[in-house]
Amino acid sequence: MKVLAVLYNGFQAAKAEPRLLGTVENELGLRRYLESLGHEYVVTSSKEGPESDFQKHIVDSDAKNLKLCVTAGVGSDHIDLNAAVDRKVQVLEVSGSNVVSVAEHVLMSILLLVRNFVPAHEMIERGDWQVSDIARNAFDLEGKVVGTLGAGRIGYRVLQRLQPFNCKELLYYDYNPLPMAAQSTVDVRRVADLKEFVAQCDVLTVNTPLHEGTRNLINKDLLHHFKPGAWLVNTARGAICNAEDVAAAVKSGRLNGYAGDVWNVQPAPKDHIWRTMKNPLGGGNGMVPHYSGTTLDAQARYAAGTKAILENYFEGKEQDPVNVIVGIGKYESKAYGQR
Amino acid sequence: MKVLAVLYNGFQAAKAEPRLLGTVENELGLRRYLESLGHEYVVTSSKEGPESDFQKHIVDSDAKNLKLCVTAGVGSDHIDLNAAVDRKVQVLEVSGSNVVSVAEHVLMSILLLVRNFVPAHEMIERGDWQVSDIARNAFDLEGKVVGTLGAGRIGYRVLQRLQPFNCKELLYYDYNPLPMAAQSTVDVRRVADLKEFVAQCDVLTVNTPLHEGTRNLINKDLLHHFKPGAWLVNTARGAICNAEDVAAAVKSGRLNGYAGDVWNVQPAPKDHIWRTMKNPLGGGNGMVPHYSGTTLDAQARYAAGTKAILENYFEGKEQDPVNVIVGIGKYESKAYGQR
Repeated sequence: MKVLAVLYNGFQAAKAEPRLLGTVENELGLRRYLESLGHEYVVTSSKEGPESDFQKHIVDSDAKNLKLCVTAGVGSDHIDLNAAVDRKVQVLEVSGSNVVSVAEHVLMSILLLVRNFVPAHEMIERGDWQVSDIARNAFDLEGKVVGTLGAGRIGYRVLQRLQPFNCKELLYYDYNPLPMAAQSTVDVRRVADLKEFVAQCDVLTVNTPLHEGTRNLINKDLLHHFKPGAWLVNTARGAICNAEDVAAAVKSGRLNGYAGDVWNVQPAPKDHIWRTMKNPLGGGNGMVPHYSGTTLDAQARYAAGTKAILENYFEGKEQDPVNVIVGIGKYESKAYGQR
Repeated sequence: MKVLAVLYNGFQAAKAEPRLLGTVENELGLRRYLESLGHEYVVTSSKEGPESDFQKHIVDSDAKNLKLCVTAGVGSDHIDLNAAVDRKVQVLEVSGSNVVSVAEHVLMSILLLVRNFVPAHEMIERGDWQVSDIARNAFDLEGKVVGTLGAGRIGYRVLQRLQPFNCKELLYYDYNPLPMAAQSTVDVRRVADLKEFVAQCDVLTVNTPLHEGTRNLINKDLLHHFKPGAWLVNTARGAICNAEDVAAAVKSGRLNGYAGDVWNVQPAPKDHIWRTMKNPLGGGNGMVPHYSGTTLDAQARYAAGTKAILENYFEGKEQDPVNVIVGIGKYESKAYGQR
């Protein structure tokens, strides 16, 4: 078989750090394994446009021979899932491989927005010291209302980690209620109406997949219903938020801040408005490149998980059901919506 | 009576934000209350040197009339406690008024060091995008050993908030064991030997008062026993760490990072080495000015607490025992060491 891995270029860093497994240079650590079984292993970062390696090898494999799409990580919205169903191509991901990493990034982002970290650190870097300029927009997370839009594997872990912070209330909005087992471990209230949900949150964290129902969901109209001065954290997918509308809300102070690692275009262009947006007090921007699920700990987990999926496939063993997004000819997960 | 409040200048920010209660401009919100009782209320930020307002008014009150020193917040190491014992001057603080604020700052600092936030945000600000340069030094908190040096009111709250992060182990070093009630709510192990303690920690957080036994405690000699690549967070007092030794350890990579809001000199001079120190991968600095206990939520609590202490004093009521550092002629707290 031909195994085609589309990874990102790690350049110098990947040569120096072999634990950067998700890079073209380090090939998910799979070359020896795959070649020992007699498979061809093609690794590339060239995935866009008709001249890309991706198109060349997909055509080469004649498309109708394509059996399996594996996301080395979580988030399969880059795959045309309906086409996969029609053509009986299975889609799998390494479910859970980065849920903890992302949940931790959410907690960090909430804290650094609420506590006004970035302007404070920048003040130190430039040689200044004026505590009141920082303190005037620094708050405690204790006593705030925090809500998660989406209470799946990541959202639930966010709620778990928020539990001891003594928030005023934890809320969630989801089309499914939390499983009973989860409800017994976190003290959280479900809000059924989206506008009522956002209106109650001092802090809102987005933990839902990108699909037709969530694309552009957080736009000017919905932001109008947010609590004035709320903080918004999005580590899910950039396109769930309208980039211009969010930036305008931060600039006006309607949102006190926005943080996350996902962008509507990736890599973000140099002039992307989210790189430089600030609230009226010069803070409120906690943006980073897309890496929350790509810590070295996560890379070890998703490289091992990708290998396990390939092993199951080669040996005809059943896949772990939690990893299957599209089975042979049908959706197995509701996470990306269904036809 | 004359009430002398030494506060910090808030300048423009304090004029715009009345919730900045701990500033000279906003006077802890106490002027109306004190003057209505016929007291004189002097507010100043001038506290250093023989010409300062502080010296002028302390002399004015003839020192032997000094009855009460109140820290509007927590941390009374700026007061000569032995002299207060000798002269029967009571020393009180608003115990607990900022413990949650500081504990939250610790959690934030741990997460942003371990997850390599600062270089990631700076990459976005300068218009770049190279995930591998960030990911190569980004980790999860899950699975790490985290220890607190000091398990008092702040250290215990740090442990509580770390609980759901699924760390490999939580440790503490303290001259007192945690109270039994606390031991039943956090899963933590006490390490009796300081060198053995630091040798086990991937992350070490300092939550002890500054006194003769902790000054300069974290120096070159002790750092030699740290786990290579550990992260160190200090929101307690800057002088607990040796500034040069910590900076050298970060620069060499012996420490992967250092974060906190306390400095051996405050305000920190423009060229303080902690402003600019970086680890060999260009990160590992999470320093901010001293504000972790000065969020607007904390300012509301310590202004109210200061008023309550003054009320008790004026009305001859007993003080809340947790607030008393030095009673009349004797230490009431062991937090600052005892003679």
